[in-house]
Formats: sequence, structure tokens, C-alpha cells
Amino acid sequence: MPQIDFWYSIGSTYTFLTVMRLRDYAESHGVRVNWRPFDVRRIMIEQNNIPFRDKPAKRAYMWRDIERRSEKYGLHARLPAPYPIRDMALANQVAILAMREGWGEHYTMETYRLWFRDGLPAGEDPNLSEAIFRCDRDPMAVIERAKTEEIVQALETETDHARDLGIFGAPSFTVDGELFWGDDRLEDAVSWARFGHV
Amino acid sequence: MPQIDFWYSIGSTYTFLTVMRLRDYAESHGVRVNWRPFDVRRIMIEQNNIPFRDKPAKRAYMWRDIERRSEKYGLHARLPAPYPIRDMALANQVAILAMREGWGEHYTMETYRLWFRDGLPAGEDPNLSEAIFRCDRDPMAVIERAKTEEIVQALETETDHARDLGIFGAPSFTVDGELFWGDDRLEDAVSWARFGHV
Repeated sequence: MPQIDFWYSIGSTYTFLTVMRLRDYAESHGVRVNWRPFDVRRIMIEQNNIPFRDKPAKRAYMWRDIERRSEKYGLHARLPAPYPIRDMALANQVAILAMREGWGEHYTMETYRLWFRDGLPAGEDPNLSEAIFRCDRDPMAVIERAKTEEIVQALETETDHARDLGIFGAPSFTVDGELFWGDDRLEDAVSWARFGHV
Repeated sequence: MPQIDFWYSIGSTYTFLTVMRLRDYAESHGVRVNWRPFDVRRIMIEQNNIPFRDKPAKRAYMWRDIERRSEKYGLHARLPAPYPIRDMALANQVAILAMREGWGEHYTMETYRLWFRDGLPAGEDPNLSEAIFRCDRDPMAVIERAKTEEIVQALETETDHARDLGIFGAPSFTVDGELFWGDDRLEDAVSWARFGHV
């Protein structure tokens, strides 16, 4: 079965679109997806890549673009969602831990739902605990483990790996050495996995 | 007939894709396109929006992404093309003048062909004169008129207009108060013009 790596960071706005439509899209195109959380903020700071913070025109556009695309994909969202979120690292440390245990996709979708539909920032309570709880896990125990050095280091390792692949933003997709950036390149990435061209 | 405004700046790399595929795409979807040259560099400097200059990872991705998309659209290109070009303002002053006289689309396509296929930077010779010549105009006379205060001012006015519409990058499309940014939003813009949604 063809497969792609989906590199994402909870905290990225456009990633909402991918997280919410990815399962159906990949399944209907017969592609397996490896979800790989990393810390895009660290890479973007290193690369002086500031897409929205000091750019009001671009930020206003981003929300409207996400709104139109949400409607196109049939996704409900209350926009603008709170942005930026404060603890992106913790949100993704929980994702790393959850991926190891097999509930990472579920957690990611729940935390984005709470962020983009209920207006609760990811990576902090009540979003964080509620998303974990909805995956039938004990929030306090999970959060404590997500803060251990082992998990912090695992997120850094994945982030280093992403940078080595040329990744500079999220969401990104990698397939056979090809990098695709942006929710709007999901179709290209899946096409590459299936046919070797976009 | 539904119509869209196509805001572009010669000097923008992704604009190559749009310039080369726009006529066929718009015609086959029954949409009229108003080509509107402006000076995106002035807006980007004002907004501290530096997408590629100091960002090698993002720049490497940009060329590969354009290459893959060129293949997808059946466009021939020799990449990377020389970048950035030195005299973006003059390239677009000529476009403003040419649009007034009805040969602006032709000039824009020719100057992009020379830039992306023959490796000759737009906005300077030999590209500039050759593109004008291919439109059956006298290069020296056109370049002289393109440098007059009237044309310089006309480009600034269009640039101010673009900024007022919320435009921060090129290519962009506007339709009924909606802004779409990027070659990859052409489909959304045309859909909006025809159906009122993306």
C-alpha cells in the first residue's frame, strides 16, 4: 500500500483542515498515512520565518481562507480560533506520547475540535485534559508523562528529523524524498505516493 | 460572464504558473479575467514579508514545488530561473503601459517565457526588449514611455489599490470582495466567480 508521512504541529492553523479531512481522503485513495508530530515553531524561529504574527493583512487572509476551505471540505469551525496558542510544545509532547500508544490520531482530532469548534486553545486546560479524556486516558497521568525528559527529547528528535528533510512549515507531507508543504498539497502528496507525479 | 481580477507582479516566481495556464483555464470555465499588474515588492517591504530571500530551505522547496507543478500543468521550464530579478518596477511599468494598449497579456507571457525557459531575467535586456519586440512594438520607444512619471504613477496607484483590497502577495485574485492568494487558489477564485463558493 502506498504511504505518506504527515508532519504536523498542534498549534498550526492550516493543520486543522488536514487533521479533519485526512482519514477519509487517504482511505478513499488507498494510501496509508504515518502521523508525525513535531515542533514547527522551533524550526520557524531558527529560520526567522514569521508568517502571521506581525502581518495583519496576511493573518486576516489566513482566517478567511481557512473558513472558505472548511466550507469546501464540509468542516464546521468557529473562526478565528484563539491564536497563537501558548504551549505548543506540550500539545505536541502529548501527541508524541499518544502516537506511541496508538491513540495519537484520536487525540489530535479531539484537541483540534476543541480548539477550532469550541474556542479552547490546544496545549492547555480545559482543552488538553478534555482531549485526553475523550481518548479514554487519565489526563493528569498522561500530562505528567508527557513532560518527562524522554518525551521532550523524542519531540526534539522528530523535529530535528523534520528539519533534515527540508521541512520548514506545517502541515507537510513527505513521500519518497519529495516534500509537500501545506494542506493544499495533500492531493499532490497522495498523487505522488500512488503514481510518482503530482 | 463571470469575471475575476488577476493581480500579478512580474518578478514573482509562482506567477509563472498562473500566467502560463490562465488563458486556457479561464476560457474553458467561461470566466473573464482582468490582468492587473502591480508592484508586490513595495507591499512586501512595507509589511516585512520576506518569503524566500533569507530562507534557504523554503527557497529550495519553492523551486521544486514550481517544477512539479509545471509538469502537472504541462509547462516547460528551466529551473531555478534567475532570482530575484533586479528591476521589478520597470518590468511592471511596461506591463501597465502594454495593458492600456491591449498587448499586456502577450508581453507578460513572453517575458515569463524568456525568464523561465531561456534563463533571461525579466525587467532588463535582453529579455525586456525581446518581449516587447515579440509583441510587434518598438522596444526603445516603449521602454522610454514606461519610465515616464505618468506610468510610474499608474503602477503606484494600482499597487495602492491592491493593498486596499488586502493583497499582500502575488499572484492574487479578487472576486466580489473575496481575496485569493497563490497560483494554487486560481481554481477557488474561478469557482467563486461561477458559483459563489470554493
